Amino acid sequence: MLRGRTNGCTLERILPLRHLCTNRADVNLSQVIFFTNRMSGTPKEEVVAKFLDASSRGNEAEVTSLLSAVPSLLEQTDSRGWTALMLAARSGHTAVVQTLLRHGCDRSRVNSSGQTASDVAKFWGHQHVSVLLGEEDGDGVGLENYFGAEPLDRLSAKRTDAAWLEDRKKHPGSVFLLFSDLSPMLHHDQQHLCRLGYEAIKDLLEKPDSLLVFLGVEKRRSSTTGSERALEELPAWFAISSGEDGAALLARCLHGERKCSFASSPHRDLLNLSDEDAGVLAPARALLAWHRRYAFCSTCGSATVSEEGGHKRRCCKQQCPSNRGVHNTCYPRTDPVVIMLVVHPGGNQCLLGRKSVFPAGMFSCLAGFVEPGETLEAAARREVCEESGVRVGAVRYVSCQPWPMPSQLMIGCHCVAVTTDISVDRSEIEEARWFPRQEVMEALLGGESRQSGLILPPKQTIAHQLLRHWISKAANL
Amino acid sequence: MLRGRTNGCTLERILPLRHLCTNRADVNLSQVIFFTNRMSGTPKEEVVAKFLDASSRGNEAEVTSLLSAVPSLLEQTDSRGWTALMLAARSGHTAVVQTLLRHGCDRSRVNSSGQTASDVAKFWGHQHVSVLLGEEDGDGVGLENYFGAEPLDRLSAKRTDAAWLEDRKKHPGSVFLLFSDLSPMLHHDQQHLCRLGYEAIKDLLEKPDSLLVFLGVEKRRSSTTGSERALEELPAWFAISSGEDGAALLARCLHGERKCSFASSPHRDLLNLSDEDAGVLAPARALLAWHRRYAFCSTCGSATVSEEGGHKRRCCKQQCPSNRGVHNTCYPRTDPVVIMLVVHPGGNQCLLGRKSVFPAGMFSCLAGFVEPGETLEAAARREVCEESGVRVGAVRYVSCQPWPMPSQLMIGCHCVAVTTDISVDRSEIEEARWFPRQEVMEALLGGESRQSGLILPPKQTIAHQLLRHWISKAANL
Repeated sequence: MLRGRTNGCTLERILPLRHLCTNRADVNLSQVIFFTNRMSGTPKEEVVAKFLDASSRGNEAEVTSLLSAVPSLLEQTDSRGWTALMLAARSGHTAVVQTLLRHGCDRSRVNSSGQTASDVAKFWGHQHVSVLLGEEDGDGVGLENYFGAEPLDRLSAKRTDAAWLEDRKKHPGSVFLLFSDLSPMLHHDQQHLCRLGYEAIKDLLEKPDSLLVFLGVEKRRSSTTGSERALEELPAWFAISSGEDGAALLARCLHGERKCSFASSPHRDLLNLSDEDAGVLAPARALLAWHRRYAFCSTCGSATVSEEGGHKRRCCKQQCPSNRGVHNTCYPRTDPVVIMLVVHPGGNQCLLGRKSVFPAGMFSCLAGFVEPGETLEAAARREVCEESGVRVGAVRYVSCQPWPMPSQLMIGCHCVAVTTDISVDRSEIEEARWFPRQEVMEALLGGESRQSGLILPPKQTIAHQLLRHWISKAANL
Repeated sequence: MLRGRTNGCTLERILPLRHLCTNRADVNLSQVIFFTNRMSGTPKEEVVAKFLDASSRGNEAEVTSLLSAVPSLLEQTDSRGWTALMLAARSGHTAVVQTLLRHGCDRSRVNSSGQTASDVAKFWGHQHVSVLLGEEDGDGVGLENYFGAEPLDRLSAKRTDAAWLEDRKKHPGSVFLLFSDLSPMLHHDQQHLCRLGYEAIKDLLEKPDSLLVFLGVEKRRSSTTGSERALEELPAWFAISSGEDGAALLARCLHGERKCSFASSPHRDLLNLSDEDAGVLAPARALLAWHRRYAFCSTCGSATVSEEGGHKRRCCKQQCPSNRGVHNTCYPRTDPVVIMLVVHPGGNQCLLGRKSVFPAGMFSCLAGFVEPGETLEAAARREVCEESGVRVGAVRYVSCQPWPMPSQLMIGCHCVAVTTDISVDRSEIEEARWFPRQEVMEALLGGESRQSGLILPPKQTIAHQLLRHWISKAANL
């Protein structure tokens, strides 16, 4: 029996094996071709069986060569609904599991007994495979939040190489993102950052109120290793901020050629970017916001200057203690924040709160800054108790999200309440309530028939993703 | 069949039920007494059966009353090795699971099929119970790191209540921890912070170079709710730092009566404290270090003053932008750091590195600061690659540790490598190597017979705990 989704090109299109005429002179593959041609009655089943058998035996070379010829094998199953991933997980074949994951196989599929590959690995004690499979989504695999993509290699080792930075600045392939008052210049589609070349911004670089930050180089596709030399030659990206007003900048850099504009409201306009552009914007905006707020040395009050491609500020007073040794005063600041999906002890309700500034009907997860000398778990318990009076027991990390307004790291946790009485701290939030799972589900899925007026934060926020995570986890109950 | 550890008072000592003559007029309990007296042939088995049955049926009241009379029931099992916790988990009885956990039952026990209560909950789809049981230790339950205890309630709402703070400062029950040059005054046992009263430090408070930080109030024992009024009356703790030198402070505050001293080396002397004192020290030292390094406004360079019990610094220049709205420049800084236990794709080796300043033979986990606009997972992958050239796939949060030197939050992750070739960045570390699990295990357990010269960081560090976590997880393979 053949089941499952196919991946791009289907088995039906591939067979009778025209696509197998490849340059790869692979013995195993030749065998398959021979085999499937010979057994003309059931060629598809034979290829699938061969593939599943190779996965089960841990023959990574064979798995790879079959997949390169017939990508749709990835999601095929045997008669019990077992995918190659499950079979490899069953026998603890790490290399095959890695290969299948790299090819993008769906780790959330279940066999006819309702087990995922992760369930199988855990049951048979292959803990290493089960970590690789990222059970619980706790490792961020398969759960990427907005602002969390990392399309550039930060190449931090080159930040101190002034000659290299100077050279890349003038390179025709380099990309510059222009900011005015911490707002990036956006394409008229509002989904992309304007990519400018050196010629468009070179005059700006000369102005004393301009600031340049090196963001990194484009990551190479389909490569996992490589020398630094090669990395150095990939297109470099920079953020440049200017004190000039937006209209003047548009005139200066675009000469009226393109329809671009500066984002006018960060919390609205910066949430519509493509995932990749959001991932570039996050460090760029956070760094520029840091430069703006940290122009003076907090240790002695003197002026500071930007160094290391915009990743350090050095105090201009030579004898300042911040210039002896390494101190955090010189480096960008990132504030860890915990944000909590608090589940009722009964399991079927969650705790949400609203601030008075929220739109009518909107509720979100409770959140707060991690304090000095505090663990994430203690911070989660403290914040929930301070804001709602509810006590929390178990705290579990789910995923995190950079939030560059100005520079938070939102650390998302799943919490289990041990008390249920709510007593709101009015200085923090206006109201907190337990919401039934059904109501949250309807609010997430939208639809016109829903009864409740509950509005949840948009999908770009980690609050939304924590709620989705809870709903998806609880779905099997 | 009766098996399992007993908890304090054993069934053997309790029966024939002398200890059951209690004040609690509990019907269920009376029934048990009657029942067990009547069935005199097997009284122990009957109580156990009653208790296990109540757990299985989700009768939390009966479980509680039986446990209060016969605490050793907690770890009793049926003939298949099932504890009450497993039975409650089997049927998804959240309240009973909570009660059993509150009584301190051992969640790591396995039944005759080798399943824990968490395995059982997961198998039967009671995800809420399985979160409560804290599978994987990922939620910090049962895995508390040094500096991570939270013996005080920070009571942050009272930081803005100047009159209350002033009153508590002078209260005879309040506790003051004295610091000189960021070093705390320690008892001669070196394991406890010196607790001073108001009389000992009141002169110091008048001096302009002294700084007072409100740390919180002692947590109430055995209570989960309560009015703020009651909290306000619990002993308040403060940290006080002085510009006076250590010898003068000892003379001033102790009058030679007690043998105390100031810690001379933070990295050595601050790792021997009791867990509770380490938990108080962490926020105290981090806050004092922040005050020392952030005396000036980073936005305009003016002087700043301490406010809100030492949890905020306000710029003295009224028109400074930092005084309009809320800005992180005014609040204590905590730097998130990722620290990684990187496991070889084969599962039986881990990657450790050494800096040139380490003692001979010492290796530790790779670590580095989280950068602006970066997720924890991306930071872990970047740091491992930068320092060792090894590429990492799955990243899983394990636990975290505040590290008040000066104010890091160490976020411990378990990482799975997808490449194995090592290429060290000499500016960061001196050497990195794959270590076999057996060698790490021997280095952790010590012992004279071990062959390797590998030295690992002490148990107070999260690096050590990440290694222990890995060894304990891998033990069942």
